[in-house]
Amino acid sequence: MGIRKNTIKIKTALISLSDKSNLRPLLNLLKKYKIKIISSGGTYKKIKSMGFKCLEVSKFTNSKELLDGRVKTLHPKIHSGILSVRQNKKHQKEMKINNYENIDLVIINFYPFEKVLLSNSGHKNIIENIDIGGPTMVRAAAKNYNDVVILSNTRQYENLTIELNKNRGSTNLKFREKLAEEAFMETAYYESKIFNYFNQKSKNLFPIKNIFSGKLVEKTRYGENPHQKGAIYSQNNKQEIIQISGKQLSYNNYNDLYSALSISKTLPKNKGVAIIKHANPCGVSININKVKSFKEALESDPISAYGGIISCNFKLNISLAKEINKIFFEVIVANGFDKKSVKLLKKKKNLRLIDSSKVEKNFKFNFINKFNSILVQDPDTQHFSRQDFKIVSKLKPTNKTLNKLIFAFNICRSVKSNAIVITKDYKTIGIGSGQPSRLDSCKIAIDKMKKFQKISDSDEILAASDAFFPFVDGIEKLVQAGISAVIQPSGSKNDKEIIKFANQTNTILVFSKTRHFNH
Amino acid sequence: MGIRKNTIKIKTALISLSDKSNLRPLLNLLKKYKIKIISSGGTYKKIKSMGFKCLEVSKFTNSKELLDGRVKTLHPKIHSGILSVRQNKKHQKEMKINNYENIDLVIINFYPFEKVLLSNSGHKNIIENIDIGGPTMVRAAAKNYNDVVILSNTRQYENLTIELNKNRGSTNLKFREKLAEEAFMETAYYESKIFNYFNQKSKNLFPIKNIFSGKLVEKTRYGENPHQKGAIYSQNNKQEIIQISGKQLSYNNYNDLYSALSISKTLPKNKGVAIIKHANPCGVSININKVKSFKEALESDPISAYGGIISCNFKLNISLAKEINKIFFEVIVANGFDKKSVKLLKKKKNLRLIDSSKVEKNFKFNFINKFNSILVQDPDTQHFSRQDFKIVSKLKPTNKTLNKLIFAFNICRSVKSNAIVITKDYKTIGIGSGQPSRLDSCKIAIDKMKKFQKISDSDEILAASDAFFPFVDGIEKLVQAGISAVIQPSGSKNDKEIIKFANQTNTILVFSKTRHFNH
Repeated sequence: MGIRKNTIKIKTALISLSDKSNLRPLLNLLKKYKIKIISSGGTYKKIKSMGFKCLEVSKFTNSKELLDGRVKTLHPKIHSGILSVRQNKKHQKEMKINNYENIDLVIINFYPFEKVLLSNSGHKNIIENIDIGGPTMVRAAAKNYNDVVILSNTRQYENLTIELNKNRGSTNLKFREKLAEEAFMETAYYESKIFNYFNQKSKNLFPIKNIFSGKLVEKTRYGENPHQKGAIYSQNNKQEIIQISGKQLSYNNYNDLYSALSISKTLPKNKGVAIIKHANPCGVSININKVKSFKEALESDPISAYGGIISCNFKLNISLAKEINKIFFEVIVANGFDKKSVKLLKKKKNLRLIDSSKVEKNFKFNFINKFNSILVQDPDTQHFSRQDFKIVSKLKPTNKTLNKLIFAFNICRSVKSNAIVITKDYKTIGIGSGQPSRLDSCKIAIDKMKKFQKISDSDEILAASDAFFPFVDGIEKLVQAGISAVIQPSGSKNDKEIIKFANQTNTILVFSKTRHFNH
Repeated sequence: MGIRKNTIKIKTALISLSDKSNLRPLLNLLKKYKIKIISSGGTYKKIKSMGFKCLEVSKFTNSKELLDGRVKTLHPKIHSGILSVRQNKKHQKEMKINNYENIDLVIINFYPFEKVLLSNSGHKNIIENIDIGGPTMVRAAAKNYNDVVILSNTRQYENLTIELNKNRGSTNLKFREKLAEEAFMETAYYESKIFNYFNQKSKNLFPIKNIFSGKLVEKTRYGENPHQKGAIYSQNNKQEIIQISGKQLSYNNYNDLYSALSISKTLPKNKGVAIIKHANPCGVSININKVKSFKEALESDPISAYGGIISCNFKLNISLAKEINKIFFEVIVANGFDKKSVKLLKKKKNLRLIDSSKVEKNFKFNFINKFNSILVQDPDTQHFSRQDFKIVSKLKPTNKTLNKLIFAFNICRSVKSNAIVITKDYKTIGIGSGQPSRLDSCKIAIDKMKKFQKISDSDEILAASDAFFPFVDGIEKLVQAGISAVIQPSGSKNDKEIIKFANQTNTILVFSKTRHFNH
C-alpha cells in the first residue's frame, strides 16, 4: 500500500476548543481525508457556521448537555471511543454490542485557566475555568496513543497536516507518541497552575508534594559552560525580563542578572548602581546624581568591572549612557532607557540592554536543584528597621552613620559568603567574597580598598559583615586599615571580646538581629 | 441546630481505591453517619467482603463496566452527581428530571503510576497504570468543593473522622477547600510524573512547558538565614541522602552537601576526601590510604576546615573516624560507615553522619530559580579524556604529571569562579575562589599555599584554572610562586603571549578544550 508500518487511518475526530484560532485549515484537512467530526457547544456552532459538516456530541451520545455544560463529554460512548484498544477483540466486541464507535483523533484545548488567573477576575470565575471534560479526553487519548492521535494545542495543527499528507490520511506511532508527551505536558502544566492557585491562597509554603512549572522563554546558546545545555523558563507567564537590544543573553548573563536584580530591587527607588561580575557585586553606590552613582560604583573595582553587568535602579539617560559607553560591559540592566540612550547603546551589538522595570521585587520562594533533590526557601528580602540593630559600643553612631552602616549591611545580602563590605558614604570601596575564612574576606576587601581608593585620615570608613566574626582578628584587621564603624550579626562566643576590642579602639560597633548568608 | 455555617451534610459517598489500606475505620465512620456508599471493581468487592453495604457503580449508572475497567465511572450520572451546584435550581431540576442524585463525598486514590515506574516493569504496564477515571472524579469533586468533600489520600481519613464527629456528619467550607487544594496537589503531582516519564523517554531536555515536582523530605529549621523558611524535596521518591545520626540537617548543610557530592562523586572510586566550607572546597585529596587522604585534605586549609563538611568517597572505618573525631565538623558524608565508626561518631550529637552510597551520580539536569524564572541546565559531569587536552608548551609533561594536572583541573568544577587550584601530587595545597578577578584568585591560592605548606625546590607544584587567563599576569604570579605546570582552557586574546611566557620560564602549559565555570 506504500503506507508505513504502525500507521493508522483516521476515520472519526472529536473536537472541543476553547481557543478556536486556525480552525479553517484544520477543517479543510479533515474534509480532505473524509474524517467525520463530532463536536459540542461553542465549537460545534463555530464549525457549522463555517460551513462544515459536524455531529453534535449530545446526538452522538444520545444524552443531553447537563449543568450549563459542566457535563457534556463525560459519557461512556465518548470515552470508550477514545480508550478502546483496536487490536483487542474483546474491546471491539463490546464496542459493537453497545453500538459504540472508535474515535481516532481528539483535538482539544482547555478552558483558559491561566489567562483568567492573570486577569484577576475573582475566585468564582477562576474556579469555573477549571476544565474537567477537556483534560479527561486529552488524558484518555494520550494514554491510548497507540491507536489515537491527540492534539492538545493549536500549534500542532501544522504538524498534523504534514503527517496526514505524508501518509495519505494516516499517522505513525512515533508521531502519536510525541503528541501524547505534549498532551501530558499540557495537562501537567494546567494542573500545576490550578494547584499553585489554591496553594498560594492557603499560604502553605511547603506542601507535602510540590509542583513547579514554567514556560520556556528561550534556550541559551549553552549552559554555564560550552559542554552544557541551558534554558530559561518563566514561572508566571509574564515576560518580566525584557531585552531591548543586543545579542542573546547567555546562561551566565541570566545568573548574573539574578544577582544584579537582588541588589537593585532593594536599593532606594530611582537611585543606585550595582556592577556585577561572576554573580558577585564588585561595586555598589547610591547617589541621586546618576553619573556620579555609576562612577562611584565603578571606582570600587574598575578592573573586575570589565565585561560585567551594570544594573541601574532608575531609567537610563543619555548622559550616563555616554559614560557607560566608554567601557566594555556585557549587559546593562535599567528600569527603562530613554530614546537617546537606546540609540547610542544599541550600536554595540554585543551589549545587551535589559529593561527590568517589569520584574517583580517580591516572589514567593527560590529554589536550587541538584542530585534529584530540590532545596526551597523564601527569599532573603525581609526589610529590617532601626529597632533590629543594637548599638553595643561605648561610642555611639550618629543617625547618619547608622544609616550608612545599614546600607553596607544590606549589600552583604548579595555578596557570596563570607562577605565583608567596606563603604564610604553610600558607596562600596572594598568587597571581600567567596572565602571559606572570614579573615581572608577582610583581607581581600582591605586590599581592594587600598588598591583603588585614596583614603585620608578624615574619611569615615565603615564595614559590614554578613555573619558574626568568630574571633577578634577580623575586626582587628579592619580597624588597623582605618575602619571606624562596624556592623555585624551577633552570636559568636567571642562577642564580648569583640565589643571590648571596639571600645579599646574607639570603634563604633553595631549588632544586627540576623545574618545574610548567600552561598 | 448548633451546626456551623457553611457546613454541608454528607448523604452519599463514592469510593474507588487503588490503595485499600485503613478502610475499616473509614467504613465504620460512614456507617455511623448513615452515608450511602457507591463503589466499583475491586473496591466494591473489598467493601462487601468486609460486611458493609455498598451499591455497585454499574447498578447506580445502569451501565456496564467496559473495556476491562478502562471505562467505569466516566458516566454523566456520576459526574452530574459530583459537579451539580446544590444552590443552583436549574442544576437541581435537571438532576431530578434525569433521576440523578448528588454525590457529597468522593474518596479516591490513583493507580500507582509512580510505584510501577520505579519497579521497572515495562512500558506497556506503565501506560496501563495511567489512571483516567480516578483523576477525573478527583478533579470534578475538587472543582465543586463548595458542595463536595474530596479525599485523595489515605492519610486524610483521620481528618474526616475529626471533622464529621465535630459537625455531626457535616463538614465546613474551609475543610473542603483545604481538601480541594490537596486534591489538585495529588493530580498535579501525578500528572508531572506521567509527563516526565514520556519526556525522559523522548530525551527532550527543554520542552516548551516544563514541570518539576518533588515530595517533601523535611522542613529545615530555617533557610539560609534564620529569618527565611526552608525545606528539601526529593524529585524521584527515593531517599538518596540517608542520615544515620546527629541533629537535623540545616538548609546550609544541604547546600554544602551538593558541593561535597559534586566533588566526591567524580573522584576515583574508593579513595578521596573533600572538605567543604560555605559550599566551596577548602581541601581535596586522593590517596588509597584513607587516613592519609583525610590528613592531606585537611592540611590544605586546616583553619577554614573547622566546622565544615567532610566528604569521603569510600566506606568510613574506625581508624579514620578516630582522626576525624579530633576536630569539629558539622557533617561527615561517606559511602557508608562501619559499625565501630558509627558507634564512636554518634556520641557527638551535633555531628551529622550521612550515607551517600545511594546518591545517584548522574542526574538529568539542575536548576536555580529566582525572580519567577527558572534557569535549567544539564550538570557539568561530562568526562574528559586525554585527547581533550592539548600540550602547548615546549616542555612536555610526563604521563604522571599530565594525570596530576587533570586531577587539579577536575577540582575546578566544584570551586566557585574564578577558580585557581594549586596541587602537589594528588592533593590540593591552595584554592582561590569566589573572586571577580582571576588574578586575585591566584593570589589567594598562593597565600594559602604559603601559609599552610612547607614547599621545597624539588617539589612539583601544579596549578589549574577553571577558565582562561585573560593576561600573562596570573600565570606569572603562579610561576613566581614555584608552580612548574599549569592547565587551563584556551580562548584568550593573549593565549600566544601566555604560551611564550611558559616557554621563557620552562613551564609546562596544557590547554583544555572547555572550561568549568561554577558561579
